[in-house]
Amino acid sequence: MTTTHPMHTTDALDTAFSRLQNDTFMRACLRHATPYTPLWLMRQAGRYLPEYRATRAKAGSFMGLATNRDYATEVTLQPLERYPLDAAILFSDILTVPDAMGLGLSFALGEGPRFAHPLRDEAAVNQLEVPDMEKLRYVFDAVSSIRKALTQADGKSRVPLIGFSGSPWTLACYMVEGAGSDDYRLVKTMLYSRPDLMHRILAINADSVAAYLNAQIDAGAQAVMVFDSWGGVLADGAFQTFSLAYTARVLSQLKRQGPQGQAIARIVFTKGGGPWLQEMGSLDCDVLGLDWTVNLGAARAAVGGVANGPGKALQGNIDPNVLFAPPAHIAAEVARVLDSFGTPHKGPGLGPTHIFNLGHGISQHTPPEHVAALVEAVHGHSRSMRA
Amino acid sequence: MTTTHPMHTTDALDTAFSRLQNDTFMRACLRHATPYTPLWLMRQAGRYLPEYRATRAKAGSFMGLATNRDYATEVTLQPLERYPLDAAILFSDILTVPDAMGLGLSFALGEGPRFAHPLRDEAAVNQLEVPDMEKLRYVFDAVSSIRKALTQADGKSRVPLIGFSGSPWTLACYMVEGAGSDDYRLVKTMLYSRPDLMHRILAINADSVAAYLNAQIDAGAQAVMVFDSWGGVLADGAFQTFSLAYTARVLSQLKRQGPQGQAIARIVFTKGGGPWLQEMGSLDCDVLGLDWTVNLGAARAAVGGVANGPGKALQGNIDPNVLFAPPAHIAAEVARVLDSFGTPHKGPGLGPTHIFNLGHGISQHTPPEHVAALVEAVHGHSRSMRA
Repeated sequence: MTTTHPMHTTDALDTAFSRLQNDTFMRACLRHATPYTPLWLMRQAGRYLPEYRATRAKAGSFMGLATNRDYATEVTLQPLERYPLDAAILFSDILTVPDAMGLGLSFALGEGPRFAHPLRDEAAVNQLEVPDMEKLRYVFDAVSSIRKALTQADGKSRVPLIGFSGSPWTLACYMVEGAGSDDYRLVKTMLYSRPDLMHRILAINADSVAAYLNAQIDAGAQAVMVFDSWGGVLADGAFQTFSLAYTARVLSQLKRQGPQGQAIARIVFTKGGGPWLQEMGSLDCDVLGLDWTVNLGAARAAVGGVANGPGKALQGNIDPNVLFAPPAHIAAEVARVLDSFGTPHKGPGLGPTHIFNLGHGISQHTPPEHVAALVEAVHGHSRSMRA
Repeated sequence: MTTTHPMHTTDALDTAFSRLQNDTFMRACLRHATPYTPLWLMRQAGRYLPEYRATRAKAGSFMGLATNRDYATEVTLQPLERYPLDAAILFSDILTVPDAMGLGLSFALGEGPRFAHPLRDEAAVNQLEVPDMEKLRYVFDAVSSIRKALTQADGKSRVPLIGFSGSPWTLACYMVEGAGSDDYRLVKTMLYSRPDLMHRILAINADSVAAYLNAQIDAGAQAVMVFDSWGGVLADGAFQTFSLAYTARVLSQLKRQGPQGQAIARIVFTKGGGPWLQEMGSLDCDVLGLDWTVNLGAARAAVGGVANGPGKALQGNIDPNVLFAPPAHIAAEVARVLDSFGTPHKGPGLGPTHIFNLGHGISQHTPPEHVAALVEAVHGHSRSMRA
């Protein structure tokens, strides 16, 4: 490969690809041609799998599961045993960082996450600091353990492992609200009334997330993803100031290469970020994740780039609810999504590429056999598109 | 006024404007110049007002309030007594139509709406019919009563009255789910598994909504608005097929003129509809409502039209959470939103116009004096923009 990549050296790319048995995800992230469209699923290790529920029952609680290296390794690999997925993603939670800041994360049964000490006043905000990364050692240990479990007899990794974190804004939502929210009233009241406090939280979150993702890279993560799950609740203008700018601050601090000198793929996903796609195209990352409201063809035209141009790979974006339909309907919707992107770059060199995914996390009510139908349809149809 | 309006005759426009004391809302809807930017607020008659809570307490329940002509009139006028708003909106609920279809609407205290008989199988869908509009007489009686209460000594209406309905898709969401939903799993399972059933529901909903809005027009509503509150949860492709097409079916059946031959303004609001703004620009309506994620300047460029062109007036779109900030911050955000649209059409003839509104309903937690600050800022800043 002699093409110059705008973000990665040829050596770093070769190292990234050559150490993988299945390099389709990594190649597509870095805008190189692949024989089919790779896929993984947000929340692919989760409650829809009976084997996950069994491990969780052993662990006793969600945090018991997430903080135990062996359990986290076990559940991360479960979906790969069932389906020929093209990437693994660390089993963890997006809220580990604020927990390490001392906010006290817990998961009540049947409810979402909750913080014992939300940020509700200036004093609490002033006390906030970038946490000691040692408090997150359990995450980095899980990354190393998963990488080991993915290593094959030939020394190559079966598929790449994606590390992740919540975005500075998404973390701030939970940190101020203390839990999930319908209206984001508390965090937006702070944003509109005391933007100085909000900027302080976001700056600390950005520096914390960067350190956290860099430590995941050092531990072996081959790609990292920033989940801006709540970016889409912001108003135009506020999104750019309070979410996008701090995602950019994270990206500016991220390591470009892992411990073997391999290129690291950097993914940003903003749920509801469709209105700002053009502006997200300027982020210093390799891949943009898209939810199901976005037309992939339009997104490719806007930010997908041409051969050797500074475009982004696109990841997404089928509605997870499609998985409740019968397999024939799933296959038809998969084809519609793949066709909306169009035939990806067939190379050599760089060009528009697509990583198939859901537009959001998989539902706990999904029949596991429907996931098999989805994976088969993605691999099958995307091979035929390239023929 | 000698300009030809693409949708309304000169006579119908003159009749619409001349029968109003304050015609700014109606003029802006129909893309005529106004001395300032008119405003009203989604859910302006509501729980944030102590006088509303007092009337609701008298009525005993939400449906007791909505189905009583005198109470509905009383609460519709309450925000106009406090603030110099430029339009009134009928106090009612978006779910009256499925209730009239026999689904059994109720509002449990502290919870959202609930249907006793949701549509869960083919038999239930097959039994669905356009309801007898006599079952919705209480709504039309409220419209007549409110119009009477708004009529001044000179025979003119103080401000115009907006009638409304949920969109066919938004009604279908509640009709299938039976209540609000986090994931729209049931309605999307039907959509992806049995699109034939979904199309049957939507066709009946569209014809019902059209008959319902036409009866509101006959009863005196000077503008009608279709609330597609849940259009934004649909995937690209599904939105066009299952929401937009049926909103278009409603619009194609709507009366263009009221009983006095006056032009009726037709507004469509899709929460989360930003990704499909261009396609919504082809709808046969006068105004598009926008939520706060949309940049008004970009929307104006996309669908606002030029002088005498087939553009849309735009309505929106400040984040309701801005109202939790102090008045000086509210004024700054109001100016930002008005400036993002830019100076509206000042001409004779037709051109880009803006109706200020929230991007979604006002929160029950809003301090009423903050609404006064918002209204003053909108009127003041928008006058200065035209100077």
